[in-house]
Amino acid sequence: MREGSGEMSPEATPLDDPVAQLTRLEPDELAVRFRLLPKDQAAEVFDALDPPQQGALLDELQAGRVRELVEQMDPDDRVRMLDELPAIVARKLIAGLTSEERRMTATLLGYPNESAGRIMSPEHAELRPELTVEDALARVRRAAPTAETVYVLPVRDAGRHLVGVVELRDLLAADPAARVADLVDGDYPAVSVVEDQEAVARLIQERDLIAVPVVDREHRLVGIVTVDDAMQILEEEETEDIARVGAAEPLRQPYFAVSVSRLVRTRVVWLLFLVAAASLTVSVLSAFEATLEQVVALALFIPLLIGTGGNTGAQAATTMTRALAVGDVRASDVAQTVFKEMRVGFLLGALLGALGFLPITLLFDSELASVVCISLLAVCPWATTVGSILPLAASRVGIDPAVVSAPLVTTLVDATGLLIYFGFAQLLIL
Amino acid sequence: MREGSGEMSPEATPLDDPVAQLTRLEPDELAVRFRLLPKDQAAEVFDALDPPQQGALLDELQAGRVRELVEQMDPDDRVRMLDELPAIVARKLIAGLTSEERRMTATLLGYPNESAGRIMSPEHAELRPELTVEDALARVRRAAPTAETVYVLPVRDAGRHLVGVVELRDLLAADPAARVADLVDGDYPAVSVVEDQEAVARLIQERDLIAVPVVDREHRLVGIVTVDDAMQILEEEETEDIARVGAAEPLRQPYFAVSVSRLVRTRVVWLLFLVAAASLTVSVLSAFEATLEQVVALALFIPLLIGTGGNTGAQAATTMTRALAVGDVRASDVAQTVFKEMRVGFLLGALLGALGFLPITLLFDSELASVVCISLLAVCPWATTVGSILPLAASRVGIDPAVVSAPLVTTLVDATGLLIYFGFAQLLIL
Repeated sequence: MREGSGEMSPEATPLDDPVAQLTRLEPDELAVRFRLLPKDQAAEVFDALDPPQQGALLDELQAGRVRELVEQMDPDDRVRMLDELPAIVARKLIAGLTSEERRMTATLLGYPNESAGRIMSPEHAELRPELTVEDALARVRRAAPTAETVYVLPVRDAGRHLVGVVELRDLLAADPAARVADLVDGDYPAVSVVEDQEAVARLIQERDLIAVPVVDREHRLVGIVTVDDAMQILEEEETEDIARVGAAEPLRQPYFAVSVSRLVRTRVVWLLFLVAAASLTVSVLSAFEATLEQVVALALFIPLLIGTGGNTGAQAATTMTRALAVGDVRASDVAQTVFKEMRVGFLLGALLGALGFLPITLLFDSELASVVCISLLAVCPWATTVGSILPLAASRVGIDPAVVSAPLVTTLVDATGLLIYFGFAQLLIL
Repeated sequence: MREGSGEMSPEATPLDDPVAQLTRLEPDELAVRFRLLPKDQAAEVFDALDPPQQGALLDELQAGRVRELVEQMDPDDRVRMLDELPAIVARKLIAGLTSEERRMTATLLGYPNESAGRIMSPEHAELRPELTVEDALARVRRAAPTAETVYVLPVRDAGRHLVGVVELRDLLAADPAARVADLVDGDYPAVSVVEDQEAVARLIQERDLIAVPVVDREHRLVGIVTVDDAMQILEEEETEDIARVGAAEPLRQPYFAVSVSRLVRTRVVWLLFLVAAASLTVSVLSAFEATLEQVVALALFIPLLIGTGGNTGAQAATTMTRALAVGDVRASDVAQTVFKEMRVGFLLGALLGALGFLPITLLFDSELASVVCISLLAVCPWATTVGSILPLAASRVGIDPAVVSAPLVTTLVDATGLLIYFGFAQLLIL
């Protein structure tokens, strides 16, 4: 939550921001420019880098400078960076911390990956219910320079159990002689330390919270997650979703900071997998080679037909991926979803088929037109069904739904669409 | 920023949240359940609805209840809802407000669509530089119950010009006798009232801000945009991007609240456009019908080849769309980007071609294998080039890059990929 300073400009957009400009450099160039920065600004730029960039930059700097930077980070940001570094480098950095910082860092590293425990800050201000408002404000004043946030104040009892939350604005507006116990909001949301980080971030977003307290299994207060962490997590998750919808792994760094060979690596695995799946289409067409030889004109509509099937499936898949991500649809809503998507697919297929029949009849013949249009009518609902079932099924077994969305759906619908097309061709033409 | 109360539960995820559950109902069902809610909870549920859902719900409720709900909304949220309503309904609702609320709402509605002016809150706390810390805190106390936020305090001079910002935590930690002028951060970012809302949201996100002041052309303070609005805007923009990457228009409502016919409408326009573009593939194949009749086996690899080209192009397009959205790449970076993507495409094509040559030679013959593999080597860099240029070009002329990403790229690469394939076939086989 503690942020640095920036350029004062009424038109300041992220793109014109000098900090943002530095974060787009490759590591060696960045290191040169970084050494020239004043100390304050250096800490700010370092904060703005993605964890893998921070690691690369540390590699380029001398040890003294490194320790200073790592010590200045918030504990939760430090943990996220340490996660990305090779274990040996991470151990060296942790060894260089003060014992208090080392203890906090080790605690956070003990929680499961991508859990609330990993992203929370243990440096939170907290209140006791028996305090008066005046005493509580005095406590907040003392905590203000170091706490992650003082705007959301968890209230805990003598056994460290979370009682509720007081917001600073309510504390300020209250009678100084009143008790914290009278102000505490016992219905304020809290999350478990093992809760998934994306669920925590969505909760903060949907309820417009500044921060949410984190509790352990015994409902004892252990930390706090702030809205800035929530925004960063949601951006990472969304970058990941968009990359996977496009059949690539996320870059995790600004585009120009990524080398050509890394770009190839983020894409080649998916591409090989999709080519392997697409070899199904070769098998299907080989099986119908005799039909193709008899009616070569059938080949003319292959790209149009499978392209339309693929696009219809991709629409359903991306709709579903997003609905799952924001929590509009659950993995268990299969029947309701598929029934809806089948109707959508049927309507789309009927519309496209009806529109295509006349032009194809005029340009080719009515037999070919019938085969193409009836195939569209069958392929579209099939595509929306596959496109909606696959992300739901993936989500159900714990796979990121974005992984099985558009490109995989498209490739599967390609092969099955060809089966449908040649099936109707044999029925209607031969 | 003012938020309601919710269920206290350590495992509270957005999905189990009763408020979130209500927001997923269709309007008529929601209206029934809504009437049964206690007043507090009703306001909270209404707040959590998307603007189109709010409008639909108002339709279903009686006039008295409606006025109460609209009056309880924050001015910026009210403006966003009014934008979505038919003009006649919006006018009726505005007429029902108190004159003060009406004035604020009308001011916000006067700014351009999707600008900072539309999303800012005019109800902000503000300080003067000559105040002492003690007096400033007294002012904050008075403002706390009504201001959108009191955690970020814009400081303005006698001419209403923005001098800078003081954060409440710094004010609390300071000596009560000090002056606001000594604490003010003159480098704190500010945005223009006509700045695009997404740029404002990204600034808040990248700099971890709680709020950012909004100024007019003369640098006079006119309002403040808070982090909760930034999160909502980013979610909307990302939902829009993901929908368009999948060739559909965003739903703007939870999935189950959208009817089948509306789902069809969000998809059919794109689908028709893509089918029209795909008819290019029919023309290309018709031109090569003689070649196809001579070597029918060429048809077997059409789906695999154009599918791979499409996937490679989609990878580049989605990478580029995301990089543009988060500000990693600018519309002017064309040369650098295309050069990078061409090399990526060339490497991917070389790899796939090298892997495919032997199996195709064994299963078919070496001539066909040569044609397919050389085509892959040409199609992949072509696809990454098209996939990177189109979003950049769109962004340059002010079109949302997500609109021209994956599906359009795929369809264009389909037709040109066929030209490349049959070109090589005529050269190498006939």
